[in-house]
Amino acid sequence: PSSVRLAVIPGDGIGPEVVTEGLKVLRAAVGSEVSFETTEYDLGARRWHASGETLPDAALAEIRQHDAILLGAIGDPAVPSGVLERGLLLRLRFELDHYVNLRPARLYPGVTSPLSPAVLENGLDFVVVREGTEGPYVGNGGAVRTGTPHEIATEVSINTAFGIERVVRDAFRRAAARPRKHLTLVHKHNVLVHAGHLWRRTLEQVNAEFPEVTTDYLHVDAATIFMVQNPGRFDVIVTDNLFGDIITDIAGAIAGGIGLAASGNVNPDRTAPSMFEPVHGSAPDIAGQQKADPTATILSVGMLLEHLGLDKAAQKVEQAVSADLIERADRVRTTAEIGDSIAARLA
Amino acid sequence: PSSVRLAVIPGDGIGPEVVTEGLKVLRAAVGSEVSFETTEYDLGARRWHASGETLPDAALAEIRQHDAILLGAIGDPAVPSGVLERGLLLRLRFELDHYVNLRPARLYPGVTSPLSPAVLENGLDFVVVREGTEGPYVGNGGAVRTGTPHEIATEVSINTAFGIERVVRDAFRRAAARPRKHLTLVHKHNVLVHAGHLWRRTLEQVNAEFPEVTTDYLHVDAATIFMVQNPGRFDVIVTDNLFGDIITDIAGAIAGGIGLAASGNVNPDRTAPSMFEPVHGSAPDIAGQQKADPTATILSVGMLLEHLGLDKAAQKVEQAVSADLIERADRVRTTAEIGDSIAARLA
Ligand SMILES: CC(C)[C@H](C(=O)O)[C@@H](O)C(=O)O
Ligand SMILES: CC(C)[C@H](C(=O)O)[C@@H](O)C(=O)O
Repeated sequence: PSSVRLAVIPGDGIGPEVVTEGLKVLRAAVGSEVSFETTEYDLGARRWHASGETLPDAALAEIRQHDAILLGAIGDPAVPSGVLERGLLLRLRFELDHYVNLRPARLYPGVTSPLSPAVLENGLDFVVVREGTEGPYVGNGGAVRTGTPHEIATEVSINTAFGIERVVRDAFRRAAARPRKHLTLVHKHNVLVHAGHLWRRTLEQVNAEFPEVTTDYLHVDAATIFMVQNPGRFDVIVTDNLFGDIITDIAGAIAGGIGLAASGNVNPDRTAPSMFEPVHGSAPDIAGQQKADPTATILSVGMLLEHLGLDKAAQKVEQAVSADLIERADRVRTTAEIGDSIAARLA
Repeated sequence: PSSVRLAVIPGDGIGPEVVTEGLKVLRAAVGSEVSFETTEYDLGARRWHASGETLPDAALAEIRQHDAILLGAIGDPAVPSGVLERGLLLRLRFELDHYVNLRPARLYPGVTSPLSPAVLENGLDFVVVREGTEGPYVGNGGAVRTGTPHEIATEVSINTAFGIERVVRDAFRRAAARPRKHLTLVHKHNVLVHAGHLWRRTLEQVNAEFPEVTTDYLHVDAATIFMVQNPGRFDVIVTDNLFGDIITDIAGAIAGGIGLAASGNVNPDRTAPSMFEPVHGSAPDIAGQQKADPTATILSVGMLLEHLGLDKAAQKVEQAVSADLIERADRVRTTAEIGDSIAARLA
């Protein structure tokens, strides 16, 4: 594309700071080749405090008209828990049918992992395909007798063959395109038998379309053990929304910290814009202090560029980050300094 | 007690091997002080293959008459997934009201963690109090249109004020008895809002009974990050059944491997016998080869002795394991050799 309409949702906490750097790097990477027209949406805690709105229908309709979305972070301690998460972030993922929540984990040269070198012998370079639209995240359930000693609260995980099949097929496609061509299903089918068996059967069925891909299965608890004992065993992982939330935070941590973990909420059918965001949260404790690492957002911008077909610009961003990480060591830099130095490599 | 009736369920895979060593150490630790009368129950894959039974009512009634239970491991690839887990292991936990699933994590001297020394500066010595009788483990849910492209599978997490309050109170009691007196609630209340808010409110309420205990809250994804970046921040953790399953496997892994992770399925009200078992599974790939590490079972025996009030014997077991671990290094020993050498320290 020669012109792109980008919706920008800076959000809460450190969101605005890291998004500023993300956009800086984006502009440096595409140069004059592509014109990016950005529209900023004031959504998040401030908006909710002012008007009680999380995601007005009109804003959603406008956002939908864009080619992609860049999001900083959502969540604020002064807003009741769940209001912004369910009303804004998850609503965007659901309404825009972001059924592939793509989260790569890679240990870049120069980055220190909390894991000892012995367990990193087989490297660390995998991708988690987290289901993004259903499972325990649907929001079904409720509470009765609230506030009494007899309260009962339920949470219903809803899993459809349709929803699982499409994300599993996407994961197979991604595995088939990688050198090792291996796909691991992570679930807990010995306890969550109904959902688990549906996931397992679907994996087997879709495997027939990708005979070149080898597969295996791990219970989520066992998967977390491998994450810290031999992360090199993983190539592509496909898993449900909640298990994916958990293991991608571990993945981020072992790959050098959540300050580097990028993600894409992808609608592979392109019926609506995909949304790119760092895996980390709004980190209210350090908000506005220029202490946040914008690298996760910058790598998310790289994923955004790739999704738009701007492969060269995407590669340039990844290379610039990679080069910056090698020289980073223990230097303390502000959020803007990190963005500047990565952008400078693209000039 | 001067005489104890112990029900023994060796179970599947490596279960029988590790239980043999557990009993060996148990007898060495109590000597002639206490007479242990053991009854072995043939439950697990073999029984199911022979008779289709998982846990016959008569066996359960008998087991209930014992003072405690020692369990090896349950689960076999030749049995449909969930049959033994739900029909035997979880049925025991539910019927015997094991609402506290107690899982200590401690890095013993001489044990190698997969974490680098830098992140272990604050040590690693915490206890997870995992809820054992409800949440996503209740088994509620089902599938409709099974096997069709329109299948829908649900899993219902059921959480009661009663169930949460009693486990939270138990966790506070344990935190109050430790030097640091700190309790961390782990959940995901920004997404699983109904269950999450019930957990959070209950924590606040019960805290009033234990004003000396400080508390904090972590989303489960953030908790896994701290597990690998600064496990020393944890003292006591209380969490739901599924989150507890996941984080205790990470806890085992960072504390040197699941071969060392002990657990107790505790009924604190003593209305039924508590059950002690290693956190690891049946590991069918190495079953019967004397390759399994019985240490987790032996440490579980230590927890069993403590639960029975045999504090001196319990301490002796822990000290013997601790001494063995220091001298262990890279020596390869059989399951029985490890049991023998720990038992020998108790003679
Ligand atoms: C903020 C929260 C709702 C969100 C999630 O659970 O998906 C976050 O943890 C993430 O991983 O993007
Ligand atoms: C075997 C399985 C049902 C069990 C569980 O999920 O509780 C196991 O993983 C454990 O942690 O004891």
